[in-house]
Amino acid sequence: MTALKPRAKPGPLSLNTATVREQWSLKDCIEGCARHGITGISPWRDKLAEYGIANAARHIREVGLTVTGLCRGGMFPAADAAGRQAAIEDNKRVIDDAAALNAQCLVLVVGGMPAGSRDLAGARAQVQDGIATVLEHAKAAGVPLAIEPLHPMYAADRACVNTLGQALDICDALGSGPADRHLGVAVDVYHVWWDPQLKQQIERAAKRVLAFHICDWLVPTTDLLLDRGMMGDGVIDIPAIRAMVEAVGYDGFCEVEIMSTANWWRRPADEVLKICIERHATVV
Amino acid sequence: MTALKPRAKPGPLSLNTATVREQWSLKDCIEGCARHGITGISPWRDKLAEYGIANAARHIREVGLTVTGLCRGGMFPAADAAGRQAAIEDNKRVIDDAAALNAQCLVLVVGGMPAGSRDLAGARAQVQDGIATVLEHAKAAGVPLAIEPLHPMYAADRACVNTLGQALDICDALGSGPADRHLGVAVDVYHVWWDPQLKQQIERAAKRVLAFHICDWLVPTTDLLLDRGMMGDGVIDIPAIRAMVEAVGYDGFCEVEIMSTANWWRRPADEVLKICIERHATVV
Repeated sequence: MTALKPRAKPGPLSLNTATVREQWSLKDCIEGCARHGITGISPWRDKLAEYGIANAARHIREVGLTVTGLCRGGMFPAADAAGRQAAIEDNKRVIDDAAALNAQCLVLVVGGMPAGSRDLAGARAQVQDGIATVLEHAKAAGVPLAIEPLHPMYAADRACVNTLGQALDICDALGSGPADRHLGVAVDVYHVWWDPQLKQQIERAAKRVLAFHICDWLVPTTDLLLDRGMMGDGVIDIPAIRAMVEAVGYDGFCEVEIMSTANWWRRPADEVLKICIERHATVV
Repeated sequence: MTALKPRAKPGPLSLNTATVREQWSLKDCIEGCARHGITGISPWRDKLAEYGIANAARHIREVGLTVTGLCRGGMFPAADAAGRQAAIEDNKRVIDDAAALNAQCLVLVVGGMPAGSRDLAGARAQVQDGIATVLEHAKAAGVPLAIEPLHPMYAADRACVNTLGQALDICDALGSGPADRHLGVAVDVYHVWWDPQLKQQIERAAKRVLAFHICDWLVPTTDLLLDRGMMGDGVIDIPAIRAMVEAVGYDGFCEVEIMSTANWWRRPADEVLKICIERHATVV
């Protein structure tokens, strides 16, 4: 395998608000980004709802931030037709929110199996059906949909799309080819770093790489959900993965997303941002 | 995808000693299997060392148990040549132990990245080299080597072979084809249930399925290593996976392996075995 070389400097930093969600409101995050010279932001819906979409959109525009994504749509599988329809309606609403924020994409965390189900293949089929159903709405709104394959440890309860290969199969099936950008993938190093098919699937994705998320995998990892590491503190070769997305033409932001109850959520948010900036410059 | 039907009854039950490792010695496990009518056993090396290989082999033979596997060889990657050589020597010793026990296979947990390394591809190459180096020794001893792909959440520190596809690539590269059984795979439902390629990779494995391990994936899972569930308590469609291995001719044991600090390791071992037997009869 030929090793790819990353560019001298990574793309600009974007702050996923989950990184300081325990410390800061969305308003705080926007002001914090401005203060620290961070030029991208990716809000979660709970923070957005709290601030109000109009306030958030205006504030982000004033400060001049790029919205690198909105987290999140998805969660398609449900135990019955009413549940599935509710998910569709919810996804249409969040597509509209993403459009109002001029977000570069809406991140789809697709959902796991409905409670009590063991039908993983069925859940996967529901995900594809759900995306198919909202795709025209997203196209009309000008919002690219980024399927985020989640680490296989989330297959049961958060996302039954667990590899880039699977996500790209859905893109292919729904008519989004390698040169298209209305339906693609979010590449989060935390979720994909282990994948033996990583390089070839990123090559296959091509222009469909809509977002690049960074953090690190800690050894040991003490919690399946909330023990992500700061870039450089774990075992992921982040520059190698950055080189892969750059090789297919990705020239967007590096969005930092760290959920960490035991460490980063306990520190002053300004300190967290400073360290994100430093690590982004040195180990990404 | 055509759904496969499992046979009316699963293959016989085997007890992996990890299931009651906090309660019982290997001697206790052998006696417990005899008492409960369990006809297979799969010891871990620590238990084996404690009892002594000669004692264990004699006792197992007297009771008439089938040794469905020995856990474990592997752990090939190391930071330097001396470390890699030590791993080779250790693997040769455990191959001899497996032969002494007349084990159906030696399970290989291949190892993760050496401490401080971020070179996952390098670790994977070391694994293949390591297996290649011990393969003749295993063949001469009559011990089939079963590569156990571990769930991707163990890629960093336990096993950098994380899919059946990857394990079979190694088998192919080392000259073990679909009809061979000297180098194959252990299919543990816990590690592979999420894999979108599961059915096709089991078909590809064919006669190389050397072992079938059962337990369940709990929702939520509270610990990455030691929170496995009893069959039926989680979300894995075990009969569906059993049908896949049966479809390629696997007619061996169902080996139960549950590591569970919070639950099964705290219960009386006789109770655990009773429940294993009941669940094996009803939900596997």
